[in-house]
Amino acid sequence: MPASKEYKEFLEMVRDLSTLEQVVSVLGWDEQTYMPSGGAPDRARQKAAIIGIIHERLTSKKMGSLIKALKKQELSADGQVILRETERKWQRASSMPVELVKEIAHTGSMSVEAWARARKESDFKIMAPWLKKMIDLKVKEAEHVGYEDRPYDALLDEYEPCMRSAELDGLFSRLKAKLVPVVDKVLNAPEPKCAMPSVRYPWDVQRRFITNLCLGIGYDLNCGRIDISAHPFTTGSARDVRITVKYEEENPVYAIFPAIHETGHALYEQGFREKYYGTPLAESVSLGIHESQSRLWENIVGRSLPFWTFYYPQMQLTFPGMKRLSLKAFHRGINKVRPSHIRVDADELTYNLHVMLRYEIESAIFEGRLKAGEIPEFWNDRFEQYLGIEVPDDARGCLQDVHWAWGSFGYFPTYALGNLYAAQLWNTARRKIPGLEDRIASGDTRTLLDWLRANVHRHGKRYCASDLIENATGEKPSEDHFIRYAKEKYGEIYGISL
Amino acid sequence: MPASKEYKEFLEMVRDLSTLEQVVSVLGWDEQTYMPSGGAPDRARQKAAIIGIIHERLTSKKMGSLIKALKKQELSADGQVILRETERKWQRASSMPVELVKEIAHTGSMSVEAWARARKESDFKIMAPWLKKMIDLKVKEAEHVGYEDRPYDALLDEYEPCMRSAELDGLFSRLKAKLVPVVDKVLNAPEPKCAMPSVRYPWDVQRRFITNLCLGIGYDLNCGRIDISAHPFTTGSARDVRITVKYEEENPVYAIFPAIHETGHALYEQGFREKYYGTPLAESVSLGIHESQSRLWENIVGRSLPFWTFYYPQMQLTFPGMKRLSLKAFHRGINKVRPSHIRVDADELTYNLHVMLRYEIESAIFEGRLKAGEIPEFWNDRFEQYLGIEVPDDARGCLQDVHWAWGSFGYFPTYALGNLYAAQLWNTARRKIPGLEDRIASGDTRTLLDWLRANVHRHGKRYCASDLIENATGEKPSEDHFIRYAKEKYGEIYGISL
Repeated sequence: MPASKEYKEFLEMVRDLSTLEQVVSVLGWDEQTYMPSGGAPDRARQKAAIIGIIHERLTSKKMGSLIKALKKQELSADGQVILRETERKWQRASSMPVELVKEIAHTGSMSVEAWARARKESDFKIMAPWLKKMIDLKVKEAEHVGYEDRPYDALLDEYEPCMRSAELDGLFSRLKAKLVPVVDKVLNAPEPKCAMPSVRYPWDVQRRFITNLCLGIGYDLNCGRIDISAHPFTTGSARDVRITVKYEEENPVYAIFPAIHETGHALYEQGFREKYYGTPLAESVSLGIHESQSRLWENIVGRSLPFWTFYYPQMQLTFPGMKRLSLKAFHRGINKVRPSHIRVDADELTYNLHVMLRYEIESAIFEGRLKAGEIPEFWNDRFEQYLGIEVPDDARGCLQDVHWAWGSFGYFPTYALGNLYAAQLWNTARRKIPGLEDRIASGDTRTLLDWLRANVHRHGKRYCASDLIENATGEKPSEDHFIRYAKEKYGEIYGISL
Repeated sequence: MPASKEYKEFLEMVRDLSTLEQVVSVLGWDEQTYMPSGGAPDRARQKAAIIGIIHERLTSKKMGSLIKALKKQELSADGQVILRETERKWQRASSMPVELVKEIAHTGSMSVEAWARARKESDFKIMAPWLKKMIDLKVKEAEHVGYEDRPYDALLDEYEPCMRSAELDGLFSRLKAKLVPVVDKVLNAPEPKCAMPSVRYPWDVQRRFITNLCLGIGYDLNCGRIDISAHPFTTGSARDVRITVKYEEENPVYAIFPAIHETGHALYEQGFREKYYGTPLAESVSLGIHESQSRLWENIVGRSLPFWTFYYPQMQLTFPGMKRLSLKAFHRGINKVRPSHIRVDADELTYNLHVMLRYEIESAIFEGRLKAGEIPEFWNDRFEQYLGIEVPDDARGCLQDVHWAWGSFGYFPTYALGNLYAAQLWNTARRKIPGLEDRIASGDTRTLLDWLRANVHRHGKRYCASDLIENATGEKPSEDHFIRYAKEKYGEIYGISL
């Protein structure tokens, strides 16, 4: 059907918003890579200016009346998705009083400062009043945004649309019940031998290897780039999707996994269909689905024996110091399971426990069962229970992540969801692609990427996460695939029955 | 006096516009340094979006009525400048019909494409129809903007406010009359001996030296950075002013002068007063004044014997291959005068002739004495007359610069003005600072910078270019100082009497 005048106008507004979001992303990339330190205060104002313009346009009367008008019109299937997803954004943005938005932003800035000090001095008391204030504000946000069941759902919905905490509760409690015994057994088994050689290579040499690796798994560097930043991230969209990594000169293995992880994110962004650029049909479904792509490439592919069967000889050529270590020993080395205090350093198995701890705290807070001041005790107790090691101080405990200071509640669970989605997608891909592991061992990751493109990437926001997973795998999201994957992989590496 | 409500509102709008201009500058910097090639079409849309918002806000009813209201109020001296300069911008932007602005932008894009092809094939015919169209549009622009005497003045005013072509005619014709014989004599004298050693150093080594040099002359790299781009430029403002250079591995001298040139621009931007950031009091007076700062540092300081008396030993340490060349021979080598076809490769002496040729063509076009199609013949005749060499083809003739394709008429003369202003400022600084050359020879360029800060930089747009020069030097802008400087310098280097 021919598009109506209103639809054309609406689509232009949607695309313009996307253009402005790209601007914010360039400003953010530059801030974290090349911006001179003196530029920080001006950069904050620049970003605030563009974000303000986006908010103004998204919540404008014009957008409101176009949405209203289009809801009465018959739209194409694409048009319906674009309308639905834009309405969702519009709804959320419009429901919040501007004053509250500003107060959250302002409190966030102050609170992040307090958090940095608190973490440095490992003193939760510095952070507590800010956290309390932020929680109060987020409760208000939830009330404005609205929810069916629990206030927390309104927050979760920002990062994982359509997911509800009732569902998460089930998924995570089953995951925990099955995962903790596996982790226990692995941690009690003798650690496989692997003495990573201590070798030193300048970033230029490492970069060459990493660039080849990222190109090898399909990252289009005509529409992307790789830089250094304090915390690795992926940013951008459409024809300009950039990743950053961090590296250690004395450990060339260190930079590889952030690089593959971020490339996984970038492959997702580069897998949207060009004709939908600038619309929700070329945007990620949710943070959980985004994370499933990074985790699948980083852990399931990138820490697998087949993958390194192909790449390890290249690695040894680039870093001759690695010649002392066999492929098998290297594979064991990059899959060591050890309890750690810091989430971002955690291995694939214990990582989910770090996340679930945070989810339990968030749930308890927004159900009114836990106060800000009680977080450290709650954290330390559960942490020891799940990971078997004591928390030495709050810096290595509940103060380690910035998310809560920013007001990002409902973000953490998407990390674990990513792991579950990844294992479930992998399980299907393995069934559908004959000899997938052999292909990977011979350098062909393209077949897997094509399968992900067809089953995940190209749909953009057409389906919600749960439907997307079900369409791709024939099952609703489940913890089973991750558990089976973990048992098989770590059983073999540790030579134990799990 | 306490600022009125209107003034506060006005100042906030002015500062917000400046913030958005900073965003355009970040987007432009990224485009020319790190952006992956695939990002080009999206980047064009991103810049157009922000430039559109700036135009919308600058020409908004609110801005118009605030300006009107403030003109009736008593303002502080600062407020008067900010109002005057904002009104000037507002006036220019408001006078142009949106359709014309768009048509010029669109024709510019097409025309730049045609220019690139025309230059590649050295075929002016490809360019001619676009140039004709652009000239017609710029005539319309001049009619809308308005002028007293000649349409060209309306165009010139965008780059060199308050300057009029009648004044330029006088200045340039006197300069030409005095310069051509000097150039003739120098070109006829035997070229001083200097065989630059052929040495090869990777960019990393070159960058270290250049960074030291730029820091040495006062560039604050906490609020700046140095990168590589195809064409060196300076961008940004306030606490984030960046330069780019280009380099040749086999010639470490090559990158030095673009680096000093751009640092000169950056020093100007970094010399504005912090309390005025975001207002015209922290903006450059004109392109001519901006260029005077880059030219002063690049040529008058950066190609002087005292400067290299201090830096040449460091250079020889960094590039041991240069040890074969004495300081004096190096100084002669970086001051060779040779007629060249390409403006950007021209030496300090012949450069002005390249500029004046372009100015004469622009004048003739907008006085209706020259048609687009007649440019090549006009160019080639005059070029041979001024430089003494034949133009082999249009690629090395009238097709070499992109400016006209963009519609930038009135831009070229600011390059020569920069040279004249620079020599005049230098002449006064030399009188006012005892032993200035000795200071420079001992590594003290700070005293000169402080003088420029006090007499040029800190004023922002408080005075027009001509008044700024008169305040700083006691005289109206004149060609005499450049001629005297050139005679003295090149007489000595070439061992002739000029």
